[in-house]
Amino acid sequence: MTTTVFEITVSLDGYVAGPDPTLDAPLGAGGERLHEWAVGTAYWREQHGLEGGERNADDELVRAQVDSTGAVVMGRRMFSGGSGGWDDDPVANGWWGDEPPFGVPVFVLTHHRRPPLVLGRTTFTFVTDGVADAHARALAAADGRNVHVAGGAEIGQQLLEAGLVDELQLHVAPTLLGDGTRLFERIDPARLRLEPIRALHSPLATHVRYRVLR
Amino acid sequence: MTTTVFEITVSLDGYVAGPDPTLDAPLGAGGERLHEWAVGTAYWREQHGLEGGERNADDELVRAQVDSTGAVVMGRRMFSGGSGGWDDDPVANGWWGDEPPFGVPVFVLTHHRRPPLVLGRTTFTFVTDGVADAHARALAAADGRNVHVAGGAEIGQQLLEAGLVDELQLHVAPTLLGDGTRLFERIDPARLRLEPIRALHSPLATHVRYRVLR
Repeated sequence: MTTTVFEITVSLDGYVAGPDPTLDAPLGAGGERLHEWAVGTAYWREQHGLEGGERNADDELVRAQVDSTGAVVMGRRMFSGGSGGWDDDPVANGWWGDEPPFGVPVFVLTHHRRPPLVLGRTTFTFVTDGVADAHARALAAADGRNVHVAGGAEIGQQLLEAGLVDELQLHVAPTLLGDGTRLFERIDPARLRLEPIRALHSPLATHVRYRVLR
Repeated sequence: MTTTVFEITVSLDGYVAGPDPTLDAPLGAGGERLHEWAVGTAYWREQHGLEGGERNADDELVRAQVDSTGAVVMGRRMFSGGSGGWDDDPVANGWWGDEPPFGVPVFVLTHHRRPPLVLGRTTFTFVTDGVADAHARALAAADGRNVHVAGGAEIGQQLLEAGLVDELQLHVAPTLLGDGTRLFERIDPARLRLEPIRALHSPLATHVRYRVLR
């Protein structure tokens, strides 16, 4: 059975990006602190052609998530990131380089129609008919493995609101940002019911997995 | 060695109380959802003269915290709660009844001088010289066990800012409040560095313990 998992890193005070994002610092002031746990893992370093790194709870968790994923849904900003900029450039190849780390079909929500883009083992398909369509296409492509909602927060919240997320995987960085983009900015608090089903930690993060109750 | 632990329950979106607190609903709209995990435990029911309740991770954690505590620091609102109201009534006996569950010295921060109050096995001492003084007196009284900072958020933050908290025990309720009182409203984000040292969960809460790094 395919499980749809929305995974995102959040500060202890609930932000997925700090204040005042710029092209050079797309995660805003202090936002790079959110991802220290991931950057330190052996997996992340392997993906970037580097040796070393930690083989800890963080590393195991990232590998297990990648192994269980059959298709990915992401927003336009997560695709274009720093290189594509904020202007929805319809031809940019994103910031994932020539060999993106996915190796499964990726569905990118965007307002610009464009043909699929093949980079290494990964095909990016651009979807302009909204989150439900992107999700349906990812489900069909996942071949029984999980659909991984990679963010950003806006896409994840849209899928949560549409009742399409089965599990929420939070990586809670042990840091405060104080201001910025909140993870749950648009969710109606009374409508989201969650049940913790796993909690792991390393010195750099707490990883909590929730089942979304309906 | 005495460890000072600030313990508080927080929503997944970072609130310790919902919006619009009143005398009848001091935790604000939806705020009672925060404490469902505690109210369901066998320990909580025993303290309230009731049978039954869950003997789960939540229950074990509460018992371990109580057993390890040698003295408590709390704010005036946590002392007076619903019965004493918001007006700092200098003679009210708080909302803890004739046999409060502490059984160790409790130091209550307040602006009103008043003599100590003995209720059952618990002595409440009212401290008017600020958090550092309350903490020093709790340390002296703890007899080698932990100093437990029971909240509210304001007192906990003052002690964090003063560098007097060694560990932060968060109970993260799997619910959103959307608005209200934020746990980390007054903390300078750049100055608080934490390291997760434990993560447990039940279906009703995630319990994350952090070491405060200096």
